[in-house]
Amino acid sequence: MHDLGYARLDTDRARRTGDPEVVYGAGKTPEQLVGILRTLHAAHPERAVLATRLSDEAMKAVQSEVPGAVLDLEARAATIGPLPEPAGTVAVVSAGTSDAPVAAEAALTARVYGAGVARVNDVGVAGLHRILAARADLDAADCLIVVAGMEGALPSVVGGLTGTPLVAVPTSVGYGASFGGIAALLGMLNSCAPGVTVVNIDNGFGAGVFAARVARNAR
Amino acid sequence: MHDLGYARLDTDRARRTGDPEVVYGAGKTPEQLVGILRTLHAAHPERAVLATRLSDEAMKAVQSEVPGAVLDLEARAATIGPLPEPAGTVAVVSAGTSDAPVAAEAALTARVYGAGVARVNDVGVAGLHRILAARADLDAADCLIVVAGMEGALPSVVGGLTGTPLVAVPTSVGYGASFGGIAALLGMLNSCAPGVTVVNIDNGFGAGVFAARVARNAR
Amino acid sequence: MHDLGYARLDTDRARRTGDPEVVYGAGKTPEQLVGILRTLHAAHPERAVLATRLSDEAMKAVQSEVPGAVLDLEARAATIGPLPEPAGTVAVVSAGTSDAPVAAEAALTARVYGAGVARVNDVGVAGLHRILAARADLDAADCLIVVAGMEGALPSVVGGLTGTPLVAVPTSVGYGASFGGIAALLGMLNSCAPGVTVVNIDNGFGAGVFAARVARNAR
Amino acid sequence: MHDLGYARLDTDRARRTGDPEVVYGAGKTPEQLVGILRTLHAAHPERAVLATRLSDEAMKAVQSEVPGAVLDLEARAATIGPLPEPAGTVAVVSAGTSDAPVAAEAALTARVYGAGVARVNDVGVAGLHRILAARADLDAADCLIVVAGMEGALPSVVGGLTGTPLVAVPTSVGYGASFGGIAALLGMLNSCAPGVTVVNIDNGFGAGVFAARVARNAR
Amino acid sequence: MHDLGYARLDTDRARRTGDPEVVYGAGKTPEQLVGILRTLHAAHPERAVLATRLSDEAMKAVQSEVPGAVLDLEARAATIGPLPEPAGTVAVVSAGTSDAPVAAEAALTARVYGAGVARVNDVGVAGLHRILAARADLDAADCLIVVAGMEGALPSVVGGLTGTPLVAVPTSVGYGASFGGIAALLGMLNSCAPGVTVVNIDNGFGAGVFAARVARNAR
Amino acid sequence: MHDLGYARLDTDRARRTGDPEVVYGAGKTPEQLVGILRTLHAAHPERAVLATRLSDEAMKAVQSEVPGAVLDLEARAATIGPLPEPAGTVAVVSAGTSDAPVAAEAALTARVYGAGVARVNDVGVAGLHRILAARADLDAADCLIVVAGMEGALPSVVGGLTGTPLVAVPTSVGYGASFGGIAALLGMLNSCAPGVTVVNIDNGFGAGVFAARVARNAR
Amino acid sequence: MHDLGYARLDTDRARRTGDPEVVYGAGKTPEQLVGILRTLHAAHPERAVLATRLSDEAMKAVQSEVPGAVLDLEARAATIGPLPEPAGTVAVVSAGTSDAPVAAEAALTARVYGAGVARVNDVGVAGLHRILAARADLDAADCLIVVAGMEGALPSVVGGLTGTPLVAVPTSVGYGASFGGIAALLGMLNSCAPGVTVVNIDNGFGAGVFAARVARNAR
Amino acid sequence: MHDLGYARLDTDRARRTGDPEVVYGAGKTPEQLVGILRTLHAAHPERAVLATRLSDEAMKAVQSEVPGAVLDLEARAATIGPLPEPAGTVAVVSAGTSDAPVAAEAALTARVYGAGVARVNDVGVAGLHRILAARADLDAADCLIVVAGMEGALPSVVGGLTGTPLVAVPTSVGYGASFGGIAALLGMLNSCAPGVTVVNIDNGFGAGVFAARVARNAR
Repeated sequence: MHDLGYARLDTDRARRTGDPEVVYGAGKTPEQLVGILRTLHAAHPERAVLATRLSDEAMKAVQSEVPGAVLDLEARAATIGPLPEPAGTVAVVSAGTSDAPVAAEAALTARVYGAGVARVNDVGVAGLHRILAARADLDAADCLIVVAGMEGALPSVVGGLTGTPLVAVPTSVGYGASFGGIAALLGMLNSCAPGVTVVNIDNGFGAGVFAARVARNAR
Repeated sequence: MHDLGYARLDTDRARRTGDPEVVYGAGKTPEQLVGILRTLHAAHPERAVLATRLSDEAMKAVQSEVPGAVLDLEARAATIGPLPEPAGTVAVVSAGTSDAPVAAEAALTARVYGAGVARVNDVGVAGLHRILAARADLDAADCLIVVAGMEGALPSVVGGLTGTPLVAVPTSVGYGASFGGIAALLGMLNSCAPGVTVVNIDNGFGAGVFAARVARNAR
Repeated sequence: MHDLGYARLDTDRARRTGDPEVVYGAGKTPEQLVGILRTLHAAHPERAVLATRLSDEAMKAVQSEVPGAVLDLEARAATIGPLPEPAGTVAVVSAGTSDAPVAAEAALTARVYGAGVARVNDVGVAGLHRILAARADLDAADCLIVVAGMEGALPSVVGGLTGTPLVAVPTSVGYGASFGGIAALLGMLNSCAPGVTVVNIDNGFGAGVFAARVARNAR
Repeated sequence: MHDLGYARLDTDRARRTGDPEVVYGAGKTPEQLVGILRTLHAAHPERAVLATRLSDEAMKAVQSEVPGAVLDLEARAATIGPLPEPAGTVAVVSAGTSDAPVAAEAALTARVYGAGVARVNDVGVAGLHRILAARADLDAADCLIVVAGMEGALPSVVGGLTGTPLVAVPTSVGYGASFGGIAALLGMLNSCAPGVTVVNIDNGFGAGVFAARVARNAR
Repeated sequence: MHDLGYARLDTDRARRTGDPEVVYGAGKTPEQLVGILRTLHAAHPERAVLATRLSDEAMKAVQSEVPGAVLDLEARAATIGPLPEPAGTVAVVSAGTSDAPVAAEAALTARVYGAGVARVNDVGVAGLHRILAARADLDAADCLIVVAGMEGALPSVVGGLTGTPLVAVPTSVGYGASFGGIAALLGMLNSCAPGVTVVNIDNGFGAGVFAARVARNAR
Repeated sequence: MHDLGYARLDTDRARRTGDPEVVYGAGKTPEQLVGILRTLHAAHPERAVLATRLSDEAMKAVQSEVPGAVLDLEARAATIGPLPEPAGTVAVVSAGTSDAPVAAEAALTARVYGAGVARVNDVGVAGLHRILAARADLDAADCLIVVAGMEGALPSVVGGLTGTPLVAVPTSVGYGASFGGIAALLGMLNSCAPGVTVVNIDNGFGAGVFAARVARNAR
Repeated sequence: MHDLGYARLDTDRARRTGDPEVVYGAGKTPEQLVGILRTLHAAHPERAVLATRLSDEAMKAVQSEVPGAVLDLEARAATIGPLPEPAGTVAVVSAGTSDAPVAAEAALTARVYGAGVARVNDVGVAGLHRILAARADLDAADCLIVVAGMEGALPSVVGGLTGTPLVAVPTSVGYGASFGGIAALLGMLNSCAPGVTVVNIDNGFGAGVFAARVARNAR
Repeated sequence: MHDLGYARLDTDRARRTGDPEVVYGAGKTPEQLVGILRTLHAAHPERAVLATRLSDEAMKAVQSEVPGAVLDLEARAATIGPLPEPAGTVAVVSAGTSDAPVAAEAALTARVYGAGVARVNDVGVAGLHRILAARADLDAADCLIVVAGMEGALPSVVGGLTGTPLVAVPTSVGYGASFGGIAALLGMLNSCAPGVTVVNIDNGFGAGVFAARVARNAR
């Protein structure tokens, strides 16, 4: 257990659960993030650490002051340390370009948690041909993450095409009566496709953790 | 102007607007409905009268006590008097069997307001092949009415397939976080397909009026 | 299909549907918008491109770096390329001066999508004489767009005066219990005038698309 | 102070405030209501007592067991004892026939609280000619009560026609996104007509009390 | 009718209704406000003009560029032209110091609309002695305006002490589950004191207009 | 641990915590309640058992089939076994007669959990003299429970009069915009009196448990 | 494809997807349910059919008129035909006895969809020892379903104890501010345990489908 | 009574109630806060004054211009004057590091109101071992304050471990469907642990006042 003053770090947690260490960047200063990443990495240099929800300033600080850190600009995240061998496959499907950051966070998280990842971008429900064209990718995955804002209809359409376990991520993309993602969240909770599960609005991280756990354990 | 005690009937309204007379059945007793239908029909036997939202008792009373009335059991509605010549076509698309009463109300209303009507049933978004198979019907119509409950995703999918004007009707079908149709309503208001308009939950009547006005005026 | 890195552009979509290309400006940088407009215009210089929801910076960049672009300051939008011949007429009615940007977006959109457009401004329900004076314009149109914030009562009043198809647009104008346009949205969804349809809060674009499709196909 | 076991009655309250005694009938048994009315009337037979929100059973019990009680079937209310001399005028305006019970409760309450009352029925915003025809009645009153459900737009229209103080009463009339009167309540709170005040959904009684106090004190 | 480009001014409205001209400052630039005030004042220098919801910049611009304008810093408002003779009395009661701006707006509005005004400040329900001490002022008024945020309980307490007509104004003062004034609004709509009416959150202006109309017409 | 098929009873829980056994009656059949009460009482006849939220049928069954059970008709509850010696005092204050069942549940619960209880009924905020008259009772208690529906203002007034710890219980009494107790709940959460805590709507039981724990431990 | 008049049955769907046929019983008459079950079973007697959300009447009708049907009274469901060989394990954890029907529906669904099932009942968060005692069962499962009403905290506690994929099911158990399951739903969506996914309120069926798909594919 | 122009200070209130003077810093300028603190301290230098919700600027101004003031940076608060002798113990338990400011405000408030305080930090429900390790501290306290955001489950877990009176404080920590603390608030109101009471979102102050009153009066 390390005590940095602004955070107590349980550096043995990863060993116990097999999951990587994760740092939730929102609300932390760049200096704090740099300190936490260095400490976690030094304690277990053989395992990955993931930092999410990084501000522009935090990404710059990590890049310049944490040697070995790898930034994912789309996901607004960083990793340090070797990623685990991928086991199983998570396919991350996203509707529009505005949903890309959440999809990227989900994809990176799934990868750091030990799954292989495939991305299927830009397949909104108003353009069915793109979804239909991606059908083989959907069937090949062990778990799907489907990311969409606005009306959140994509999980229903994808869920109707395949029997692969499907985690839906509503995003806050939209305006007016989208109410910051509530419309998409409700749409996904009420999906007519059986077997769709849902996470919190913009919670790419949670979807990635869940899907990786499913994929890692798949045949 | 006729005064029945429980209702003042403006029997010349139809002549002024070209629309039929309409009686909203909810909250009226069977006796009141029978009286209103007889009075309206007697005033203008050459035009149609439409009664909607009829209870079981009201439908029985209308059938036995209003000669010439035609019941639509699915729509829970009745008409009396000759329907107008159909002009243009409204296609009414519905997702599930539970949405059928609202779709039937929309279809009957559009017909009584002067449009021809085509029905496309049972085309939920989790079964895309049925929607794709109906594409010719969608393109042939002058206005579409798309009826769906739960997540309300069908208008987005249909709206992505065609450029025909599309009115979406959310239904109260669902449970839990469907909140009596709110999820479907929000989904439709946030549709990613451009040019989707929406009416109140379960308001097949309003959609039918609007669509008939569009279709009647179409080339 | 053009790939600009930050956007994949389907430059043949317009040919397939007959609609113009549209760029939703919110969330895009001025540089991205300039790039997209140039690419779309170059691919099909004979057709119109519409860019909406432009920031001040984006409007300046478009004006100085996209030759031939025409700005609509009130609508916060731009077009490039020749507009289609107008077919049919959309009348855009708005309640207060604060609703003008949404009304202007609706009007420009309807025009770019191929309809002729008439504007009727500043006709709030608390001043009935202005609405009554505009009655001829309302009857002459093939489709009405009625834009209002606060209590959103204008569509009910206009819808009681005319049988023209009417699309209502709630705006986020108001404060306190207007809840960013929810009061107006609910008012319009519950309109006592039959045949009123509604779009999302501030969604002038969606109303314009819908109304143009109705007007283009009108007799 | 009388103690009936199920109620403590402050039979001198009326003398102190000049207002009548009022019994809120919801949740009370017919027997309790009969007992309360008899006790209040016996204590001050020279003043009026008002009982509101009576069930069918309560109205029957009052009629048969409280001699001198006068029932108002539309308002679902009863009075006993002489009404005060009317002072000033309250005009009660209502939109649709379904709003009539709330309007009747408001009118009876205003009368029992000492104002003269005029009724203006069936003047929905989708039929402006009826409202315009009632303009003289609106201007002649000392206070207006405007009752409407659905979108609740009537107070805005009436408030734009006159400078008389106006109390708006939203009703629970409607379905779907009317949410039991919330749409009308929000519409009235956001009225663009200045000087509109609002009471709780279906609260005809509260509007009547307020308006009577204004009218009684008017020149 | 004056057309300033950014506003059409109906300079004869005041003559028709007897009310002053009012300019709602929110969303207008200082330059626009200066222009409107000058135009309205020039058209009818013998009557008052009221400008509300002024920003700091707007107040400075009005002070330096509109000779004769009088600023009310607490109400964030300005008047120009002679105020009418006061008729009747409006008492404005407010709960906490944070509610003062809304109370000041209500008081100034009532004064400009022709009533005399008394202020009773800082009388929260958690300190009953202050309310009880103000009882004579409450009884002497023709109409009360009671302004409160947080739980909005003050109108119930005041309404239990007096039979004077009472308009309640919820304010957005509070945090967390006050939801920007919703808690106070609901509290006031559900007041157990009979005859309380309510206006929109922070709508001191509307309460002032209403109360002045009541007071001006009082005996 | 007893297993009745429909319930597993942990008959030693009371010994461990010092609290009585409690049976939540909602959703249980009269037969189940009779069986549970008998079993719990037989296991520890020297301690009290409390059953809450009993239907009419359940109360009858308990009365006839559970010898020694004592019914509290107002609280819709029953106890069996000797009540503990009272330690400290809880004062239960309620606003209106409709709030009485919740207040009675709170009072009985506090008593069964070991506190002495005083009741102060019928002290709504619109009648301050009754509250002021009860001030000595409020100061004498170790913990207050204040029960109110509608606007839920009573805790603020009581909390301003005394420094005794105060638990507020919102009730579902009201209609329209009371939203089944939400208005009262929000009012209490936003109380301007410092140190007011709140429980769920109609949760007299929870307030009683909490207050008894405070009172039992008081000097 | 069979057409029964009241339903079109796609009797080949199961063959295509490997999932059983499912009949959603809510809103269907006992006669319709009997007819559908017979038809589906006759078409593919070698596979299971599942009927959920059965009313008392429907359960009686199925028992007496569908030979071979097996009722699950707790789940309010029925199956007919041989269940598939179980593959993998789903553990269904539930908080209180009121949550049992939803947990039973989830368990039966998972079993019919091909997974083995373990039940862990009555492990509310206020009794941690029971949860801790079940830890081995949690770790042994391939997927967890955690069912809870009221505050919905159980998934967070369980999710903190194990890395097994966890699907949370909020139930409508509770009252007052539980809002029919919304409190539990929000609690689960905001779980601080990473990797929790959620389905609609009371949607045991959806959780069962999802979990079975995960378990069937597990190593 | 001191009148500073911007505030009326009742400098004898503390003497009457035994509580300290409190200044709510939100919405006050640094200059106002400095003035109020000096005046209150000068009036009663022998007692404590507490200032909460201080901005960065306010904390700097207090530090440099109010000699003797003691800042609590974590709580964003300041005190001046001697703290009272601690009587009884309040234990403040918090879930995550983001909840620390609210927990610190609660702890400081309880201390200034006269209780001794113990802190138990960083004991989220997803890590039960930390909670279990703190059990002795929980049992030793006279009142618990449990602070948590996100799903707000901690009070249920703590309340299941101990019979100490427990006040729950929801925080606005979270995102998406946490809705600024609503999820935590609802979770706490619906806690399955009996005897949990709740205060407003982020209201550490109110919880501290209440808990201190309980602890001061404890045996």
